[in-house]
Amino acid sequence: MSLEKTLSQIDTDLPDSLDRLFELLRIPSISTDPAFAGDCDRAADWVVDTLTDLGFDAAKRPTAGHPMVTGSAGDGGIHLMFYGHYDVQPVDPLDLWNEPPFEPKIQDTPNGKVIRARGANDDKGQFMTFIEALRAWKAVNGSLPGRISVFFEGEEESGSPSLVPFLNAHREELSQPDLVLICDTGMFDPQTPAITTMLRGLLGEELTIIGPDRDLHSGMFGGIAINPARVLARIIAALHDDNSRVTVPGFYDGVADLPESIRSQWDGLGFDQAAFLGEVGLSQPAGEAGRTGLEMVWARPTCEVNGVWSGYTGDGFKTVLPSRASAKISFRLVGTQDPLAIRESFRQMVQDLLPPDCTVEFKDHGAAAASVMSTANPIFEKARAALSDEWPRPAAFIGGGGSIPIAGHFKDILGLDSMLIGFGRDDDGLHSPNEKYDLESFHKGIRSWARVLDAVYS
Amino acid sequence: MSLEKTLSQIDTDLPDSLDRLFELLRIPSISTDPAFAGDCDRAADWVVDTLTDLGFDAAKRPTAGHPMVTGSAGDGGIHLMFYGHYDVQPVDPLDLWNEPPFEPKIQDTPNGKVIRARGANDDKGQFMTFIEALRAWKAVNGSLPGRISVFFEGEEESGSPSLVPFLNAHREELSQPDLVLICDTGMFDPQTPAITTMLRGLLGEELTIIGPDRDLHSGMFGGIAINPARVLARIIAALHDDNSRVTVPGFYDGVADLPESIRSQWDGLGFDQAAFLGEVGLSQPAGEAGRTGLEMVWARPTCEVNGVWSGYTGDGFKTVLPSRASAKISFRLVGTQDPLAIRESFRQMVQDLLPPDCTVEFKDHGAAAASVMSTANPIFEKARAALSDEWPRPAAFIGGGGSIPIAGHFKDILGLDSMLIGFGRDDDGLHSPNEKYDLESFHKGIRSWARVLDAVYS
Repeated sequence: MSLEKTLSQIDTDLPDSLDRLFELLRIPSISTDPAFAGDCDRAADWVVDTLTDLGFDAAKRPTAGHPMVTGSAGDGGIHLMFYGHYDVQPVDPLDLWNEPPFEPKIQDTPNGKVIRARGANDDKGQFMTFIEALRAWKAVNGSLPGRISVFFEGEEESGSPSLVPFLNAHREELSQPDLVLICDTGMFDPQTPAITTMLRGLLGEELTIIGPDRDLHSGMFGGIAINPARVLARIIAALHDDNSRVTVPGFYDGVADLPESIRSQWDGLGFDQAAFLGEVGLSQPAGEAGRTGLEMVWARPTCEVNGVWSGYTGDGFKTVLPSRASAKISFRLVGTQDPLAIRESFRQMVQDLLPPDCTVEFKDHGAAAASVMSTANPIFEKARAALSDEWPRPAAFIGGGGSIPIAGHFKDILGLDSMLIGFGRDDDGLHSPNEKYDLESFHKGIRSWARVLDAVYS
Repeated sequence: MSLEKTLSQIDTDLPDSLDRLFELLRIPSISTDPAFAGDCDRAADWVVDTLTDLGFDAAKRPTAGHPMVTGSAGDGGIHLMFYGHYDVQPVDPLDLWNEPPFEPKIQDTPNGKVIRARGANDDKGQFMTFIEALRAWKAVNGSLPGRISVFFEGEEESGSPSLVPFLNAHREELSQPDLVLICDTGMFDPQTPAITTMLRGLLGEELTIIGPDRDLHSGMFGGIAINPARVLARIIAALHDDNSRVTVPGFYDGVADLPESIRSQWDGLGFDQAAFLGEVGLSQPAGEAGRTGLEMVWARPTCEVNGVWSGYTGDGFKTVLPSRASAKISFRLVGTQDPLAIRESFRQMVQDLLPPDCTVEFKDHGAAAASVMSTANPIFEKARAALSDEWPRPAAFIGGGGSIPIAGHFKDILGLDSMLIGFGRDDDGLHSPNEKYDLESFHKGIRSWARVLDAVYS
């Protein structure tokens, strides 16, 4: 009956679990902005202290960027390694937040209570479900259920530049575990827990088109001087055809059609496309013609503009002919698409589209292939059953549209498979203003991990 | 010999003239940014004080925006009204300035000494050539040469929203003069002074494409959700055809081919297109196929992107799918193109290009038709001769690519013709970082006005 006691302990301890999460949420650990480097370091220290308190030999490990946190504790059974990230996304546009993003609070909503803060879901709220499950387990049983290692990074939201060097440098130490657990994904819906077994890869590119050697007066030079903002618009417009297919040469190499078995499983999930789109003010899928909504977000590659800027963008009007125009563009990748080949083809395509007198500068913002998990290990079925015990509907193996490149790196560098279990919801506002995590996700997420640990170690 | 004495007085007084100009240049009167409203007011006060000192009954006149300054002085002869604007362009990107923009200084360059500051040319340096000519005239002769009124505004760089209402409200008072003088244009080249007789109009538009009702995670929604940054790029790309002609329906209504007489006069000016473009790092004209360079900048209409922004534009990378994308777009107009008809056609074209689930919001940033000056008044030939006396080469009647909508408003509302004489050079960096005005432009500009006044009133 130790599981029942652990679940009861989790219920009793929930207010304190929340206090601990709120401490962490108050640290503005925005990894992409150098102004917050000190806060990232504070968040790493907080994680070390928390793990040490649970008996881990936790340590902050320096990198060229933000530090990693590693540690191990417990004995026996399968050796699990849990991965999370303590950094968060930027908060702009700040004026769209209804509450300060780093002052977490519980709020009532029509769908129940939510934890409101940047990082409430991604990934602080999510990884704390695992930490709090360990805490409850130890409180009831006096020790952890088996050998457990942890690995936290602080650069997940900025392309993880230090990750591959760190894994390579510490390969022997880090390849000891048998399987990686990652809590950075969502449920299929609020009733249906999920294990995510397909994840898209991500290629990040920034380009700057340069024309005149300085900003010009559009009256004096307009009509005779090339305008880089217009050149950039034509390039962006050329990246998709009229059926929303990406036009970068060779882009679809390695993209297979969905196997019939997976397609029928997904069709059976009852995906409510109208509700999914309606939640964010849309009504029609904008992806490739002839694909289902779940294919578009889980199984098809994309090319998206994440940011554009050129010229005068303040109040009022300035009749400037800008000297440069920039965009941040990301590609979501599937199957065996090769990120580096696509980067090269994209850059060549841009070069080929440049008119006379224009040059282009590129900046590399990371590249990771898609991940397709092996579900052959029986632990997947054990976990699925454990999750099904906690939630109203049975757990499903699903795809994920977001990229978690770490799973690919664990496989490629350490030889480790990953199992991705998370409790996010579609309306959590990841990367958006007013991010939240349902109190139910947090509470039942902790309980879910206790059940999974019990299933794995018993 | 009073003219010779006045010219000599101008030469002697030049250091003090510069001191007075520098006082004005130190006031950061950026009209488009509300943060500088107090500075605009200080600049207006400075102009009032300066005019009062010269015997004008000068007054600051309130508007819904920044104040006007008006005044009159002197008696007899043709009644001239001088127009200038005391506001300046914004200074961003500030990091491209080699010196603080509001700390004017004299600098040596390979082409001679220059006055370096925001507004050194546009329009503070330019209008001070007229003021200082009046000052010298009065010092030598004890009075002004005839009846002279002045009219200054502080919103020229932000679309002049208060101008038309003010002219309408004070039509009787302001229509008393016989002719308007405007000093806000350039020479043809450093040896050739010019009277500008054709000016392009300006239509300013801002559009915001709105898709999802909030910023989305590009992993979760990328591929199924419409991306407004991509929609905006397609709209901007559609505004020109492959020959750089503007595609807005009806855009070329009212655009006539250049009369042969003007074309041959311009061909005779010896425009050095390679040098004009080379000065700003370009080599090839990017305008309509089959047009000369001077046509492109003086006689053909344009559509330019002055600013674009969407999504995440900071350091690093953020995989956001933005909810909105904006652009500031301006049209330079010629002949009898109708700005309001073009605005309507542009907005309809954008609406027609919108995909499902997208909406657009427009913001009006002003509309003014092109101006074509009447040169029938003999004062034009008198001024041309006076300018030819001061400079190495004879003065020419030329076109101007920039817009000075005020000339059109003076004609339409007050019934007044304008004569545009200015001393700017192509490399002055109007609206750009490191704006300058040649010391020779300032000095010989003052002398030029003294000669023009002498020719007009003798």
